Amino acid sequence: MDPVLVTFVGGDSGPWTVERVVEVRGAPLEPAARVAIFEGWGAHPPSQASWELRGVTSHDRYVTADERKALSAVSAPLGRPSATAAALIPIRKSAAWWALPQDERRAIFEDRSHHIAASVGYVPRIARRLHHGRDLGEPFDFVTWFEFAPADAAAFDELCAALRGTEEWSFVEREVEVRLIRDN
Amino acid sequence: MDPVLVTFVGGDSGPWTVERVVEVRGAPLEPAARVAIFEGWGAHPPSQASWELRGVTSHDRYVTADERKALSAVSAPLGRPSATAAALIPIRKSAAWWALPQDERRAIFEDRSHHIAASVGYVPRIARRLHHGRDLGEPFDFVTWFEFAPADAAAFDELCAALRGTEEWSFVEREVEVRLIRDN
Repeated sequence: MDPVLVTFVGGDSGPWTVERVVEVRGAPLEPAARVAIFEGWGAHPPSQASWELRGVTSHDRYVTADERKALSAVSAPLGRPSATAAALIPIRKSAAWWALPQDERRAIFEDRSHHIAASVGYVPRIARRLHHGRDLGEPFDFVTWFEFAPADAAAFDELCAALRGTEEWSFVEREVEVRLIRDN
Repeated sequence: MDPVLVTFVGGDSGPWTVERVVEVRGAPLEPAARVAIFEGWGAHPPSQASWELRGVTSHDRYVTADERKALSAVSAPLGRPSATAAALIPIRKSAAWWALPQDERRAIFEDRSHHIAASVGYVPRIARRLHHGRDLGEPFDFVTWFEFAPADAAAFDELCAALRGTEEWSFVEREVEVRLIRDN
């Protein structure tokens, strides 16, 4: 599949209502009441917005063939009717991270931080899609969108806490967590 | 270093004169007499041009720490006064390539195609910079810029021929080679 540009717009319109914002690290986002999502290179988001976060769905950067098979077998899809809760987490990693060669990034990501191993137990309940913004000149390197049932919010918090304690996260210099509820 | 957007414009202006164009695979480019290069997200290339190829200088995707050390120790820089010849090679790889996980792409790229091992002997003479276009929605996934002395043109041809015979190149579905000479 070709990369798809996705634009998340925080403002006063969109089907997702901002429940709360956690300022995890670095500069926060401007306040916004609702979030709308636009897909495609030709999409024209509204010009009046508190913020706009852009990223591209792209090929996998670290996952091996075996890991992908394990994840694909159990990952929930986006758009489940029961998944009325969501989180939007933009992240910027440091220059030191991006200066590392591929084998060292991979070693930190999985061999030492267990990013995939820690996540695989959660992905049946927590659907996600990763968007890459760094090569677009965006302020955030990644924007990840998560969807889950409100009853799984505690599991989502647990996963975030586990990842934020890893060596990989020592390279995160900016992170914001926007928690959302979908209109019925 | 943050990614830099680079735009190569083929038309009737710019310091590089098109010497010849090799249509390696797939659809060719429109004819152009000269090439100009613009750097930066805010750069505004001329609107009248035969073609415009965009890509971002970005972090290494496959190179290991040891390989990077070996390459850095011997790589020629861009902009040498003696390097009055250049080549601009846009490439698009197939959907099958991008669907592969990281470990399989790496295995094809280096373990089986020896992309880095084949190149390391040439990089003292042939300076290069890689630009990534795929995540920008560009028609080419990569645009590579090479600079060398006219006397090293045969070495450049030799390197191209070696790479084009590899398993990695079986995933290349479009490639054009634009050969250039710099104004004195």
